[in-house]
Amino acid sequence: MSAGMQGRIGAVGFVRSLLRILRGRPHIPPAVKDNRALSVILNRRSVRRFLQKDISEDVFAAILEAGRLAPSAVNLQTWSFALFTIDSWKQTFGQPIPFRAPRAAIILADTHRVRQAFEAFPHSPLVEHTVAVMNASLAAMNMTVAAEALGLSSVMLSETGRSGLLDAGYLKETLELPEKVVPIMTIVFGYPRAGWSPMPPKLPLEAISFEGSYSESNPALMTEWLSQMKAGYKASHPLSSLEAQLEDYASKIGAAEADLQAMVFGEGKPSSTSSDEQI
Amino acid sequence: MSAGMQGRIGAVGFVRSLLRILRGRPHIPPAVKDNRALSVILNRRSVRRFLQKDISEDVFAAILEAGRLAPSAVNLQTWSFALFTIDSWKQTFGQPIPFRAPRAAIILADTHRVRQAFEAFPHSPLVEHTVAVMNASLAAMNMTVAAEALGLSSVMLSETGRSGLLDAGYLKETLELPEKVVPIMTIVFGYPRAGWSPMPPKLPLEAISFEGSYSESNPALMTEWLSQMKAGYKASHPLSSLEAQLEDYASKIGAAEADLQAMVFGEGKPSSTSSDEQI
Repeated sequence: MSAGMQGRIGAVGFVRSLLRILRGRPHIPPAVKDNRALSVILNRRSVRRFLQKDISEDVFAAILEAGRLAPSAVNLQTWSFALFTIDSWKQTFGQPIPFRAPRAAIILADTHRVRQAFEAFPHSPLVEHTVAVMNASLAAMNMTVAAEALGLSSVMLSETGRSGLLDAGYLKETLELPEKVVPIMTIVFGYPRAGWSPMPPKLPLEAISFEGSYSESNPALMTEWLSQMKAGYKASHPLSSLEAQLEDYASKIGAAEADLQAMVFGEGKPSSTSSDEQI
Repeated sequence: MSAGMQGRIGAVGFVRSLLRILRGRPHIPPAVKDNRALSVILNRRSVRRFLQKDISEDVFAAILEAGRLAPSAVNLQTWSFALFTIDSWKQTFGQPIPFRAPRAAIILADTHRVRQAFEAFPHSPLVEHTVAVMNASLAAMNMTVAAEALGLSSVMLSETGRSGLLDAGYLKETLELPEKVVPIMTIVFGYPRAGWSPMPPKLPLEAISFEGSYSESNPALMTEWLSQMKAGYKASHPLSSLEAQLEDYASKIGAAEADLQAMVFGEGKPSSTSSDEQI
């Protein structure tokens, strides 16, 4: 881990970083500021506090329709949605839906289904996996924006409550997933509880875009961003730290890597991990 | 390739499948049919015919803002956008932007940047790649919906004009991408030319969702879908066929797999492909 991550954050730096987070706003050009649909998209936040209010079937159906109609490479629709209510999640996982949301969907990158119709990805497991993850993520984002349009909120989970990519092996077993079906995230949906959610620290456009050849991000921008990430995490988890959280992820990521490699390349095929073990 | 793909499509089946495509509509529950933002999302289509009309800087900036503010696992923002105008695309690739669109963005799954700040993915190349592709796809979808909200259209490309995942190696070289930066798609943006675009054949919700354990899709639904895919392709490409197009992809996918494995696992590490060669 780099020096940047190990460095402690002083009180002044902490406050300064927090103030920068609190000042974060979408940049909406004045010419398009009255566009309601755009405003829905740019003001979306990941929300983790929900009202104890159910989502009607019609509203949930409209969210799923946004997933169903998402674009996909060659229109292959390589996604599946495992749908849960409060009760069915409890029954399956033995605990409430994370953040006590009323509905959840586990998003699966699924090429198993299209393989029933024809062989779309001959001998190309990594291309197959990549396309499947890409398509399923497009559907996930479309569902999330649709929820926002309907006055709901949501958050995508990769780990909380063993609900996403870092628990792919566990989910495969629990949901009895066949080969070529990989859980990538859970989205939980609900009506947001009152309260203001600041934007998480976002990199400026200049750090994430380029014209012509690839350009490296300005190191000062990355340092500033990392300070804000640490400060934001500390403010919302006073008893923990971003470093501790990342160490927690790191402790799980090895098992997740092995599970994922088995899912993508098959148990029998040598993966880089199993090859390492042979040495 | 399965018998399903090899079977010829008769004239009656062709017409019947086309009619089913033409009848395809988003299912919008009456209770939410007046929701404008939802309507933007559900009526989005991939468009391949554009007006020769430029996109203003403000409008393009709002689209990029939707990408910048997309959600991402642990807020790592593992994406980069390579931005092009008509002129810079021509200069880089020696041909017009596909479908003569006025603007293009190549979406890159990029963990190179965050690696400058700290080691987010210790020894987990496939988890790293999967998270990067997932996040970059979320940004891509958010940009696409924002374009739609602004009255523009777009299409995501994985192959046309050597612009996406199937040409990852070529794009890496052309854009001088460092390690851990993987091009996954190009999005081209423009104002749509008049004309009606039918929905591509979409699987019904019952085929792509389940409650409880994974359930296999009804084979009859898959056969019906495949017939519509073939008919739709034939109607829009009278001189070709879906089968011919898939064979064209198949001819490129082996090279794409090797390039992608090298990008994800590194040249030196054994991948399943290189291990096969050692046998």
